[in-house]
Amino acid sequence: MATVNPNYENLQGSYLFANIARKVEAFKESHPEADIIRLGIGDVTRPLVPAVIEAIHAAVEEMGSADTFRGYGPEQGYDFLRNAIAEGDYAPLGITIQPDEIFVSDGAKSDVGNIQEIFSENNIIAITDPVYPVYLDSNVMGGRTGKAINGIYEKVVYLPTNAENNFSPAFPKERVDIVYLCCPNNPTGTVLSRARLAEWVQWCKDNEAILMFDSAYEAFITSTDTVRSIYEIEGAREVAIEFRSFSKTAGFTGTRCAYTVVPHEVTAKNAEGKRVPLNPMWNRRQTTKFNGVPYIIQRGAAAVYTPEGRAQIKEHIAYYMENARIIREGLEAIGLTVFGGVDAPYIWIQAPAGMSSWDLFDTLLEKVHIVSTPGSGFGPEGEGYLRLTAFGSRENTIRAVDRIKTLQF
Amino acid sequence: MATVNPNYENLQGSYLFANIARKVEAFKESHPEADIIRLGIGDVTRPLVPAVIEAIHAAVEEMGSADTFRGYGPEQGYDFLRNAIAEGDYAPLGITIQPDEIFVSDGAKSDVGNIQEIFSENNIIAITDPVYPVYLDSNVMGGRTGKAINGIYEKVVYLPTNAENNFSPAFPKERVDIVYLCCPNNPTGTVLSRARLAEWVQWCKDNEAILMFDSAYEAFITSTDTVRSIYEIEGAREVAIEFRSFSKTAGFTGTRCAYTVVPHEVTAKNAEGKRVPLNPMWNRRQTTKFNGVPYIIQRGAAAVYTPEGRAQIKEHIAYYMENARIIREGLEAIGLTVFGGVDAPYIWIQAPAGMSSWDLFDTLLEKVHIVSTPGSGFGPEGEGYLRLTAFGSRENTIRAVDRIKTLQF
Repeated sequence: MATVNPNYENLQGSYLFANIARKVEAFKESHPEADIIRLGIGDVTRPLVPAVIEAIHAAVEEMGSADTFRGYGPEQGYDFLRNAIAEGDYAPLGITIQPDEIFVSDGAKSDVGNIQEIFSENNIIAITDPVYPVYLDSNVMGGRTGKAINGIYEKVVYLPTNAENNFSPAFPKERVDIVYLCCPNNPTGTVLSRARLAEWVQWCKDNEAILMFDSAYEAFITSTDTVRSIYEIEGAREVAIEFRSFSKTAGFTGTRCAYTVVPHEVTAKNAEGKRVPLNPMWNRRQTTKFNGVPYIIQRGAAAVYTPEGRAQIKEHIAYYMENARIIREGLEAIGLTVFGGVDAPYIWIQAPAGMSSWDLFDTLLEKVHIVSTPGSGFGPEGEGYLRLTAFGSRENTIRAVDRIKTLQF
Repeated sequence: MATVNPNYENLQGSYLFANIARKVEAFKESHPEADIIRLGIGDVTRPLVPAVIEAIHAAVEEMGSADTFRGYGPEQGYDFLRNAIAEGDYAPLGITIQPDEIFVSDGAKSDVGNIQEIFSENNIIAITDPVYPVYLDSNVMGGRTGKAINGIYEKVVYLPTNAENNFSPAFPKERVDIVYLCCPNNPTGTVLSRARLAEWVQWCKDNEAILMFDSAYEAFITSTDTVRSIYEIEGAREVAIEFRSFSKTAGFTGTRCAYTVVPHEVTAKNAEGKRVPLNPMWNRRQTTKFNGVPYIIQRGAAAVYTPEGRAQIKEHIAYYMENARIIREGLEAIGLTVFGGVDAPYIWIQAPAGMSSWDLFDTLLEKVHIVSTPGSGFGPEGEGYLRLTAFGSRENTIRAVDRIKTLQF
């Protein structure tokens, strides 16, 4: 008799974006004339840059001719891309990453969701609150969380991350084996300082914990007191796995390419207490259950590292970050308290006193026809906040801010 | 203290293709003049067809313009592709598959490897022997197999599949909860009859088991007494999950697109013995840990269903199957016993009396410079067999057969 994974029953409904969509639909029905501006979902809007487009076209041509056709590629990614990543993303930071420490994949979401598989079921995980939901849900499915009581999983350690602690969570007091940190952060748009990250690396060493470091937004960093890679921190190679993506950096949300770095030195213990390297385990996972990213997509990703690609991508990042500045300064000008938007394309707005996340969401939708994301959707500590994204067009961003400025809080 | 998944220690080395590569390298070094023909790995060689190339180029152009750019798509695949699959692959067989029963993915390997996640750890799996290794290895990782003793996992039910039973395995005598069948079969190239598959569906119903039906090679079927889809069998919608791929059908091994069908009726029991539908569980798995196939690749896959795409693909299939005929008839002409090659691009050769799989491999490599795959690499019951593939060029296929004909067995 086949039986289902019982852990799936512990999942909570993922109703956030469905609820938002329902509210927007209802509003549109009652206000068909309303010109709605969407600054809710974290999806890019600028097209793929010319260098990427040209590289993909050229690779498609190769695939159409028997002489240059490519069948199965290496599951971990082609050398041309792994080398480009090592030389383009890490060497400039003074970091040596070997190509065989880089695993190219179809998305940071896939990797961040799948990585828990190589760990035993009895690891205790810590996540920040608010948080990107995949860290949590993949561990619910993997049996590491227990049941949720009033929305809080019994075995998960939550790290409150809010204005009171300047968005820099305290260390766990309980036993924790795996810590997820996202920096620059989704949803808060804030970063952790270099000094604090060094303390986190040391904390992981002291506690024999693994640090899952999600730096999908590193390309948006403009301030200097943080890191672009966790491997800028001494000793991080022994405890940290880093997740990177072309999604936001190069507009690949619909094109799908990312990578994960598993240094040779990072280990965890087996049942006998012996240290086991994680790199061969992840390699085995990927070669068994994944067959690589399309050749043509990898060629597109490699083009991001050409001089033309770099310059074109930089323009897009600057475009989004100018949107972020417009939103941030515009809202500050009317007395709202806002965070983020300096090192990330997210602006995290504190709701005026007495308003919940959904209150502010409703106000923006009903009064000025702007779609946002209520902070409470990212975890209990997100209550009282709201996320806007800088991924819209310049025109819509300016119009949205002008409209919000008409509101009285 | 972070600890690793203990099940990974139960994995056996996957040395088959590494061993083959090592032997080929050694032979090349001692015989640098040898003109080696590779009929080992199951990878296609014909380029993507013009309809697919054109569709991808057009989609790349869309991605380069802000007006037509696509960001995140539905994790399950775009409607245009799910509809094309339902109408193109199933409707002609008289089968109704709803688009929301189809999950587009980056590969059948990924799906067949990940599907076990939605089942509890204590399901007993049955695999044929020989077998495509992913069914087994993904379940080793998932903790369902126990340890291997002399290459045999203690909790796995093996179904010997060989010339003695005409490559149609007997039903398990022990308890089995999940059965993996691949038809047309990799590596044997054989098919199960329609009547036998109906018995399998009934067996699964009687035993409350799930049938994992891998039909990645259905496009190669030429005989009539088998099925192109398991859903041709009455009642299969209640017990079977079907895996399909564009890899071999349309030469997508390096382009990556596949799909899995999870009918609304297929259920398994939860801990309380209540039947739970698997479709929403797989949907939750995919939406949590996967972000969809690149838009441009999905457009390429959809082009396979256009009249031009169909005609072009058909030519490629015919090309490979003519290779299969040349190999099969050529080897039969010199008295070898061969199987497969009628409904699949694989020819499964019985080694002459007294020869092991590796003996025959060595003979082909050393005497006539042909790379093959020893059957023992696919499981103990593959011993005494050898696999050749029909995916080479016509010229190389003819030359290879002419060379083999010079051998004395």
